[in-house]
Parts: sequence; structure tokens; C-alpha cells
Amino acid sequence: MAVYTDVGVDDLERFLAGYDVGTLLSYKGIAEGVENSNFLVHTSSAHFILTLYEKRVAAGDLPFFLGLMEHLARRGITCPQPVKNRAGGMLGTLAGRPAAMVTFLDGMWIRRPSAAHCAAVGEALGKLHLAGQDFPMQRQNALSVAGWRPLYEQAKAGADGVHSGLGEIIASELAALEKSWPRGLPQGVIHADLFPDNVFFLGADLSGLIDFYFACTDTLAYDVAICLNAWCFEPDQSFNVTKGRALLKGYEKARALTAAERAALPVLARGAALRFLLTRLVDWLAVPPGALVKPKDPIEYFRKLRFHRAVKTAADYGLT
Amino acid sequence: MAVYTDVGVDDLERFLAGYDVGTLLSYKGIAEGVENSNFLVHTSSAHFILTLYEKRVAAGDLPFFLGLMEHLARRGITCPQPVKNRAGGMLGTLAGRPAAMVTFLDGMWIRRPSAAHCAAVGEALGKLHLAGQDFPMQRQNALSVAGWRPLYEQAKAGADGVHSGLGEIIASELAALEKSWPRGLPQGVIHADLFPDNVFFLGADLSGLIDFYFACTDTLAYDVAICLNAWCFEPDQSFNVTKGRALLKGYEKARALTAAERAALPVLARGAALRFLLTRLVDWLAVPPGALVKPKDPIEYFRKLRFHRAVKTAADYGLT
Repeated sequence: MAVYTDVGVDDLERFLAGYDVGTLLSYKGIAEGVENSNFLVHTSSAHFILTLYEKRVAAGDLPFFLGLMEHLARRGITCPQPVKNRAGGMLGTLAGRPAAMVTFLDGMWIRRPSAAHCAAVGEALGKLHLAGQDFPMQRQNALSVAGWRPLYEQAKAGADGVHSGLGEIIASELAALEKSWPRGLPQGVIHADLFPDNVFFLGADLSGLIDFYFACTDTLAYDVAICLNAWCFEPDQSFNVTKGRALLKGYEKARALTAAERAALPVLARGAALRFLLTRLVDWLAVPPGALVKPKDPIEYFRKLRFHRAVKTAADYGLT
Repeated sequence: MAVYTDVGVDDLERFLAGYDVGTLLSYKGIAEGVENSNFLVHTSSAHFILTLYEKRVAAGDLPFFLGLMEHLARRGITCPQPVKNRAGGMLGTLAGRPAAMVTFLDGMWIRRPSAAHCAAVGEALGKLHLAGQDFPMQRQNALSVAGWRPLYEQAKAGADGVHSGLGEIIASELAALEKSWPRGLPQGVIHADLFPDNVFFLGADLSGLIDFYFACTDTLAYDVAICLNAWCFEPDQSFNVTKGRALLKGYEKARALTAAERAALPVLARGAALRFLLTRLVDWLAVPPGALVKPKDPIEYFRKLRFHRAVKTAADYGLT
């Protein structure tokens, strides 16, 4: 949660002059997103989110992300819409960084999701997968199975300092998943990071999906597995099967899982848990002790991983 | 720049139910203020800033700050106005912290102020001092001369690690200012932190003053001295006398300085520089090396202090 790059008024006014958005009235850095600098911009015409892409985001990927949001919005998925500049482009430069503006979405993210929220996010995910089917661009998932070993190599020296025996457990899990990772399941655009803070609700209704900066072309059911991890565990890391059932039922309202996808769900869920365990562990080890900004706890995902290792079939997630 | 306390949707909706502000549509933590957690709240009626007061702000001082904003707004100073709840109060509790909502002000703060901006802020400060004259509450300035020695005691062991010889220079400056600090100058409400990021402009016009959480009852001309420090130095820490002249002229358009205030300006400016040097030094030393959040550089104020030590009369600041 940070703003990495400050933006001066003159620079921002010059940038906005390239858009048909009226005059600048205010802008404030918002404490959201861990990868980029985000500002809430108020102009005489509307509110927008302005994002400056920091170095962790590859500039070459931006046309995929922005094009995807535009594509999904056109197919009825409520997500931020990139605002086009007068030249028809969605990407500009501000403070030396690639920058884009998207429309502002009302809605709040839910800190403690209920089964009803899980049902809504499942259905939205299914719709997103369908809407993405004819998106013409491709982006490889750098954080799927092939990307995990390099993360493990980065983190292994420090892993046992975080939790005794963690390094060895990750190593054995990684070896197992590299062997058993399912191939040939239905592919398409996945969000790949659809955590509660990326889903807005207004009252009981899901009002929008945000933050497509991990979106990529990958196994659709892996996205479902990420959501099971992100939405269906309780604060004590116990799995709530009512929430799992709601999420999977919601998903299948939009898109039915194939038999192969159903069978693969436990291994996909293990993989998803390992993926977040690894990235959180790397971030955790990169922060000096005593720092004010605490990264997310990797052990949460270690506990989730342990649950998935004990799962026998997708029925344990509530799949009927 | 941070949000220290997260707020859940249910808690916020319960809090807002105590106000006549419509239904909650969105809220986002904003990366502003170093002392408190701030959220931009959008409801069906308007936009607001919600502040959760963290432990560095004494709860007993909040009625002063909120009462002052209300008082000033009623006298035509453009500043955030506390929103009253249904019981007529301005202060509530949210996430276990004292919390208040104020109206949202459009406008941008100027990263590189011109002489014209300095003139505008000078005039606004003069008007603020006049408008505060009949404010009935009092608050002692914990960061005036009596508060500096305890800060020095906290920082002295680490001072030379930040800049060679810094500890000794602060000690001698402190001793000199404790002896020569002017007494008996006109007193009243001062803002005490009117830095560029607390002053909004829309185009060339000053559109509002914010952040009254250091406001107190103290020497009016000390507030002028704080502004000379905050607004009239160039990025290389050279003093821009054109900006100084503009600020002082602007101030005197609203309120003329007395002869005693004019004579005291150099020592007040030294004191103001020492005050920010000390608080920044304490913050600097409290942050572990390698932390992502860099506190403000104390050495900037060490350089300003050196300038003020060489000043002979207020004419050196551009006072005519």
C-alpha cells in the first residue's frame, strides 16, 4: 500500500490535456495496489483512477491489461474502463513512467466475505472466463508452475527462519507439483489475483472487478483454485466448505467445469496455495526487520497448502 | 504517508448511519497525513474525508481542532468543515479510534511554489490569524521552544551519525534560542504546519487550507516564520528573497506586523528551522535502515537554520 511516485500539478495538467476529461480539480494518492502508484483524480467531468506503472510491471504487458479491460467491459463485465486519449491511445507517460487512466468504480471490498459473497464472486469469475474467450491477445503466466522454482531458489535460504522446516516442505511440494501439474485443461484469460480486495460490492450486489495486472492466458480452473484459496478460508485458516460450495456453484451458473477440471481441482488448489506462499515469502524476506510496512504473511498460505494436501477429491471443496 | 487502520464496510456503514450523509458508495485509504489514517468517502450525498486519529494525536485536543475548523469556516476561511452527526457532535468512534468526517475540498497542492503562490499563502495566513482572534478555546504549542529540549535529548545520541557535528550545533542553537526567544509578541491561533501540502490551489487561486492538527495558541509571527521556512527556500536550500517579500507583503495585506514582530522575525525563523530539524531528526532516527518508507530529510532544515543564523534583520527576508 503505497504511492511510489509523486506527480506535480503541472505535469498532471499537461498529461490530462491529452484527454477529453475537462479540467483538473483534485488528485490524491490512494493507499491501494502494491505494485503501482495510484491516484484518485477529480476533473470537471468525472472521477478517475490514474495509475503510474512502476518497474515491477513490464511495460510490454500494458497493452494486454488495458486491452483486456476494454474487451471485458464491452462484454458486460463491470470493470474499470481505460480512458482513451485524443489520439485514441490508452497508454501515456507521466513522471517518466507509463501511465493510464481508468473510470472510477463505486463499491467496497468485503473484509469478511459470506457464502453469498463467494457465490457472487464465483459467478463473476465464470462470466469473466466466458467473456475472455474471444480476447485476441495472449500473455503467459509468469507465476504458474514454471515460475515457482525460481521463486523457491530466491527464498530457500531464508525459509526456515520464517517457519521451521518450511524450506523442505516447499521443495517436496514443488517437486510433486512439477510432476503432476495438469496439462490440456481448458485455457483462456484468467484474472489470477481475484482476492476480496479486487472485488467490489454495493450492498449485496457485486458491483465490479478491478486490478487486472496479473491477468494472463492460463488454465481457467486454476483461477477457480486461486479463488477457493482467497475466499473460502476462515481467519483461522480452516476451510469453510459452505463457502467453497457457494463459490463453485456460482461459477457453474456461468460456466460448467469439465470432468477433467473437477478432477484436477485439488492439485490446482495446492498449486495456487504454493504460488502465493512463494511470492509472499520472497516479499517477506525482502523487507528489513522493523520496517513500518509489513508485507502479507506467507504462513497463511502454508496453512492453506497443508489443507489441500489432505484433500482427496473436489467434493472436499463442496463440489457437487 | 500511510493508512494505519483498516476499516470494514459494516463498521463504516454503522458509523455513517449516525450522520445525515446518505448511503455509502465507496471509500479508499489516501496516502496523506503522517499522523492519522485518512479515507476518501463517497456517499450518495457527497464526498468526505474521514480521519481516524491514531495514538500520536491526543484525543483531548480533538475538540480544539474540530472546533477551530468550524470557527474558521464560519468566518470565511476555506478549510474542511467538520460534519455534525445526528446528535450534533463532530467526534465519533470507529475501529476503536476517535474519528471525524470533514467536507472534501477540491484543489491541488503546489510542489514548486512561485512568488505568486507565496503571496497568496501569506495573505491566507494573515486572514487565518484575524479569523482566529475570537476563537474561545486554547491549546498550548507542545512544539514551541519549551518542547525542543526534550526532542534534542531524544535525538542527541544519533545526531552525529546523520551529519557530523550536528549534535553540537543543535545544542548551542538550542541554548541560544532558549535565552533569546521573544516573549510578549501578539498571540492567537496559529496553524503551525502550513507547508505547501496543506494549501490547495485551483489555477492561480488559493482554494483552501487543510490539516489543522498542529494548530495551537502561540505567537502569531512564529507562524509567519514557519511559512518563510516552508515556502521561500529553493530546492538547493538557498533563500529566495522575492518569495519572502511576496509572502510577507501578502501577510501584511491582511494583518500588519508590529515593530516588535518585525524585529523578532530572524530569531523566530531560526526557532522554526530548529523545530522542524528536531522533529525530523527524531523521526529519521526512529526508522530502521533499509525501510521502504523514508521520513523527511532533517538536513534540509539544518541548511535552513544555517541561513537564518547569518541573517541580520528582517529585511534579509524581504520585509520592507
